[in-house]
Amino acid sequence: MTDTLPPNVYQPLCPTRMILDCIADKWTVLILGMLEDGPQRFNHLRREVGGISQKVLSQTLKSLERDGLVTRTAFPTVPVTVEYAITPLGMTLAGTIAGLRDWAESHIGAVLAAQQAYDQRMDQA
Amino acid sequence: MTDTLPPNVYQPLCPTRMILDCIADKWTVLILGMLEDGPQRFNHLRREVGGISQKVLSQTLKSLERDGLVTRTAFPTVPVTVEYAITPLGMTLAGTIAGLRDWAESHIGAVLAAQQAYDQRMDQA
Repeated sequence: MTDTLPPNVYQPLCPTRMILDCIADKWTVLILGMLEDGPQRFNHLRREVGGISQKVLSQTLKSLERDGLVTRTAFPTVPVTVEYAITPLGMTLAGTIAGLRDWAESHIGAVLAAQQAYDQRMDQA
Repeated sequence: MTDTLPPNVYQPLCPTRMILDCIADKWTVLILGMLEDGPQRFNHLRREVGGISQKVLSQTLKSLERDGLVTRTAFPTVPVTVEYAITPLGMTLAGTIAGLRDWAESHIGAVLAAQQAYDQRMDQA
Protein backbone atom coordinates (compact mmCIF):
# COMPACT_ATOMS: atom_id res chain seq x y z
CA MET A 1 0.00 0.00 0.00
CA THR A 2 1.33 3.41 -0.85
CA ASP A 3 0.59 6.53 1.09
CA THR A 4 -1.18 9.18 -0.94
CA LEU A 5 -0.62 12.84 -0.25
CA PRO A 6 -3.52 15.32 -0.36
CA PRO A 7 -3.77 17.31 -3.62
CA ASN A 8 -1.40 20.28 -3.46
CA VAL A 9 -0.84 22.62 -6.39
CA TYR A 10 2.35 23.93 -4.74
CA GLN A 11 4.08 20.56 -5.29
CA PRO A 12 5.51 20.42 -8.82
CA LEU A 13 4.89 16.67 -9.16
CA CYS A 14 1.31 16.67 -7.87
CA PRO A 15 -1.19 15.93 -10.68
CA THR A 16 -3.24 18.97 -9.59
CA ARG A 17 -0.22 21.17 -10.28
CA MET A 18 0.18 19.73 -13.77
CA ILE A 19 -3.47 20.58 -14.41
CA LEU A 20 -3.00 24.09 -13.03
CA ASP A 21 -0.01 24.51 -15.37
CA CYS A 22 -2.36 23.79 -18.27
CA ILE A 23 -5.41 25.83 -17.20
CA ALA A 24 -3.55 28.87 -15.78
CA ASP A 25 -2.41 29.74 -19.27
CA LYS A 26 -3.43 32.66 -21.47
CA TRP A 27 -4.06 30.49 -24.55
CA THR A 28 -6.29 28.08 -22.62
CA VAL A 29 -8.27 31.05 -21.28
CA LEU A 30 -8.70 32.55 -24.75
CA ILE A 31 -9.49 29.27 -26.57
CA LEU A 32 -12.03 28.00 -24.02
CA GLY A 33 -13.60 31.47 -24.10
CA MET A 34 -14.12 31.13 -27.87
CA LEU A 35 -15.52 27.59 -27.59
CA GLU A 36 -18.07 28.66 -24.96
CA ASP A 37 -19.98 30.27 -27.85
CA GLY A 38 -20.19 27.00 -29.78
CA PRO A 39 -17.98 24.60 -31.78
CA GLN A 40 -15.28 26.24 -33.91
CA ARG A 41 -13.03 25.16 -36.73
CA PHE A 42 -9.27 25.23 -36.31
CA ASN A 43 -8.76 28.04 -38.82
CA HIS A 44 -11.46 30.17 -37.21
CA LEU A 45 -9.73 29.86 -33.83
CA ARG A 46 -6.41 30.67 -35.49
CA ARG A 47 -7.86 33.93 -36.85
CA GLU A 48 -9.80 34.97 -33.74
CA VAL A 49 -7.18 34.29 -31.07
CA GLY A 50 -4.85 37.13 -32.02
CA GLY A 51 -1.14 36.38 -31.84
CA ILE A 52 -1.34 32.57 -31.55
CA SER A 53 0.82 30.51 -33.90
CA GLN A 54 -0.47 27.42 -35.69
CA LYS A 55 1.92 25.25 -33.66
CA VAL A 56 0.89 26.62 -30.26
CA LEU A 57 -2.83 26.46 -31.15
CA SER A 58 -2.39 22.85 -32.22
CA GLN A 59 -0.44 21.91 -29.05
CA THR A 60 -2.88 23.70 -26.74
CA LEU A 61 -5.92 22.05 -28.36
CA LYS A 62 -4.27 18.62 -28.09
CA SER A 63 -3.55 19.19 -24.42
CA LEU A 64 -7.12 20.40 -23.78
CA GLU A 65 -8.45 17.35 -25.63
CA ARG A 66 -6.30 14.99 -23.53
CA ASP A 67 -7.49 16.68 -20.33
CA GLY A 68 -11.11 16.11 -21.38
CA LEU A 69 -11.94 19.82 -21.74
CA VAL A 70 -12.38 19.86 -25.53
CA THR A 71 -13.45 17.35 -28.20
CA ARG A 72 -12.02 17.17 -31.70
CA THR A 73 -14.21 16.00 -34.58
CA ALA A 74 -12.93 15.48 -38.12
CA PHE A 75 -15.45 15.63 -40.99
CA PRO A 76 -14.59 13.72 -44.20
CA THR A 77 -14.78 16.75 -46.48
CA VAL A 78 -12.09 17.65 -49.03
CA PRO A 79 -9.97 19.03 -47.45
CA VAL A 80 -10.85 17.51 -44.06
CA THR A 81 -12.74 19.88 -41.74
CA VAL A 82 -11.77 19.69 -38.07
CA GLU A 83 -14.06 21.13 -35.43
CA TYR A 84 -13.42 21.67 -31.73
CA ALA A 85 -16.10 21.85 -29.04
CA ILE A 86 -16.05 22.40 -25.29
CA THR A 87 -17.07 19.37 -23.15
CA PRO A 88 -19.34 19.42 -20.07
CA LEU A 89 -16.15 19.17 -17.95
CA GLY A 90 -14.72 22.14 -19.84
CA MET A 91 -17.90 24.07 -19.14
CA THR A 92 -17.33 23.63 -15.37
CA LEU A 93 -14.08 25.58 -15.86
CA ALA A 94 -15.51 28.20 -18.21
CA GLY A 95 -16.99 30.43 -15.50
CA THR A 96 -13.74 30.59 -13.56
CA ILE A 97 -11.62 31.53 -16.53
CA ALA A 98 -14.21 34.04 -17.74
CA GLY A 99 -13.49 35.70 -14.38
CA LEU A 100 -9.86 36.23 -15.47
CA ARG A 101 -10.89 37.88 -18.74
CA ASP A 102 -13.47 40.02 -16.93
CA TRP A 103 -10.91 41.07 -14.31
CA ALA A 104 -8.44 42.15 -17.00
CA GLU A 105 -11.11 44.19 -18.79
CA SER A 106 -12.59 45.81 -15.65
CA HIS A 107 -9.30 46.64 -13.83
CA ILE A 108 -7.32 47.84 -16.83
CA GLY A 109 -7.40 51.47 -15.59
CA ALA A 110 -5.99 50.61 -12.16
CA VAL A 111 -3.25 48.41 -13.63
CA LEU A 112 -2.17 51.01 -16.22
CA ALA A 113 -2.02 53.69 -13.47
CA ALA A 114 0.11 51.37 -11.30
CA GLN A 115 2.46 50.67 -14.24
CA GLN A 116 2.88 54.39 -14.93
CA ALA A 117 3.62 55.15 -11.25
CA TYR A 118 6.12 52.26 -11.10
CA ASP A 119 7.94 53.42 -14.25
CA GLN A 120 8.17 57.00 -12.88
CA ARG A 121 9.66 55.70 -9.60
CA MET A 122 12.20 53.67 -11.56
CA ASP A 123 13.13 56.69 -13.69
CA GLN A 124 13.68 58.81 -10.59
CA ALA A 125 15.76 56.15 -8.83
CA MET B 1 -8.57 62.91 -31.53
CA THR B 2 -7.87 59.24 -31.78
CA ASP B 3 -10.52 56.54 -31.85
CA THR B 4 -10.28 54.14 -28.97
CA LEU B 5 -11.30 50.53 -29.38
CA PRO B 6 -13.23 48.73 -26.64
CA PRO B 7 -11.07 46.48 -24.41
CA ASN B 8 -10.61 43.11 -26.12
CA VAL B 9 -8.35 40.39 -24.71
CA TYR B 10 -8.36 38.64 -28.11
CA GLN B 11 -6.30 41.49 -29.64
CA PRO B 12 -2.60 40.92 -28.88
CA LEU B 13 -1.85 44.66 -28.63
CA CYS B 14 -4.79 45.55 -26.36
CA PRO B 15 -3.60 46.46 -22.84
CA THR B 16 -6.19 44.07 -21.38
CA ARG B 17 -4.52 41.20 -23.26
CA MET B 18 -1.12 42.12 -21.84
CA ILE B 19 -2.66 42.00 -18.37
CA LEU B 20 -4.29 38.66 -19.11
CA ASP B 21 -0.89 37.34 -20.26
CA CYS B 22 0.43 38.21 -16.80
CA ILE B 23 -2.46 36.98 -14.63
CA ALA B 24 -3.31 33.82 -16.59
CA ASP B 25 0.00 32.32 -15.54
CA LYS B 26 0.68 29.46 -13.14
CA TRP B 27 3.36 31.35 -11.19
CA THR B 28 1.09 34.36 -10.67
CA VAL B 29 -1.66 32.05 -9.43
CA LEU B 30 0.67 30.29 -6.99
CA ILE B 31 2.46 33.43 -5.71
CA LEU B 32 -0.70 35.49 -5.14
CA GLY B 33 -2.19 32.44 -3.42
CA MET B 34 0.73 32.45 -0.95
CA LEU B 35 0.51 36.21 -0.34
CA GLU B 36 -3.21 36.02 0.45
CA ASP B 37 -2.15 34.51 3.80
CA GLY B 38 0.04 37.51 4.65
CA PRO B 39 3.35 39.16 3.65
CA GLN B 40 6.17 36.75 2.77
CA ARG B 41 9.90 36.99 2.34
CA PHE B 42 11.48 36.18 -1.01
CA ASN B 43 13.23 33.06 0.28
CA HIS B 44 10.06 31.75 1.85
CA LEU B 45 8.22 32.08 -1.48
CA ARG B 46 11.14 30.39 -3.22
CA ARG B 47 10.83 27.37 -0.88
CA GLU B 48 7.04 27.13 -0.87
CA VAL B 49 6.32 27.56 -4.59
CA GLY B 50 7.71 24.20 -5.68
CA GLY B 51 9.65 24.16 -8.93
CA ILE B 52 10.11 27.93 -9.36
CA SER B 53 13.63 29.21 -10.08
CA GLN B 54 15.09 32.27 -8.38
CA LYS B 55 15.10 34.11 -11.72
CA VAL B 56 11.47 33.39 -12.59
CA LEU B 57 10.29 34.23 -9.04
CA SER B 58 12.18 37.51 -9.22
CA GLN B 59 10.77 38.37 -12.67
CA THR B 60 7.21 37.43 -11.72
CA LEU B 61 7.32 39.49 -8.51
CA LYS B 62 8.69 42.49 -10.41
CA SER B 63 5.90 42.21 -12.97
CA LEU B 64 3.26 41.87 -10.22
CA GLU B 65 4.73 44.90 -8.45
CA ARG B 66 4.63 46.97 -11.65
CA ASP B 67 0.99 45.94 -12.23
CA GLY B 68 0.10 47.14 -8.73
CA LEU B 69 -0.81 43.68 -7.41
CA VAL B 70 2.08 43.29 -4.97
CA THR B 71 4.27 45.65 -2.90
CA ARG B 72 7.96 45.11 -2.18
CA THR B 73 9.45 46.39 1.08
CA ALA B 74 13.16 46.20 1.92
CA PHE B 75 14.19 46.22 5.59
CA PRO B 76 17.71 47.53 6.42
CA THR B 77 18.85 44.36 8.16
CA VAL B 78 22.15 42.61 7.42
CA PRO B 79 21.65 41.01 4.98
CA VAL B 80 18.72 43.08 3.66
CA THR B 81 15.31 41.44 4.22
CA VAL B 82 12.80 41.85 1.40
CA GLU B 83 9.14 41.24 2.02
CA TYR B 84 6.29 41.03 -0.50
CA ALA B 85 2.63 41.74 0.27
CA ILE B 86 -0.57 41.62 -1.77
CA THR B 87 -2.21 45.02 -2.45
CA PRO B 88 -5.95 45.81 -2.24
CA LEU B 89 -5.99 45.63 -6.08
CA GLY B 90 -4.32 42.22 -5.87
CA MET B 91 -6.97 41.08 -3.42
CA THR B 92 -9.68 41.83 -6.01
CA LEU B 93 -8.02 39.20 -8.22
CA ALA B 94 -7.36 36.69 -5.44
CA GLY B 95 -10.85 35.17 -5.45
CA THR B 96 -10.80 34.54 -9.19
CA ILE B 97 -7.43 32.83 -9.20
CA ALA B 98 -8.31 30.82 -6.11
CA GLY B 99 -11.07 29.44 -8.34
CA LEU B 100 -8.40 28.04 -10.70
CA ARG B 101 -6.56 26.27 -7.85
CA ASP B 102 -9.85 24.94 -6.47
CA TRP B 103 -10.93 23.70 -9.89
CA ALA B 104 -7.63 21.81 -10.35
CA GLU B 105 -7.97 20.19 -6.92
CA SER B 106 -11.67 19.30 -7.22
CA HIS B 107 -11.64 18.01 -10.84
CA ILE B 108 -8.39 16.07 -10.71
CA GLY B 109 -10.23 12.71 -10.90
CA ALA B 110 -12.16 13.64 -14.04
CA VAL B 111 -9.05 15.03 -15.76
CA LEU B 112 -6.90 11.98 -14.94
CA ALA B 113 -9.66 9.67 -16.25
CA ALA B 114 -9.85 11.71 -19.48
CA GLN B 115 -6.06 11.56 -19.90
CA GLN B 116 -6.05 7.78 -19.42
CA ALA B 117 -8.87 7.31 -21.97
CA TYR B 118 -7.08 9.59 -24.45
CA ASP B 119 -3.78 7.73 -24.10
CA GLN B 120 -5.55 4.38 -24.65
CA ARG B 121 -7.22 5.69 -27.82
CA MET B 122 -3.83 6.92 -29.08
CA ASP B 123 -2.19 3.54 -28.32
CA GLN B 124 -4.91 1.72 -30.28
CA ALA B 125 -4.72 4.08 -33.25
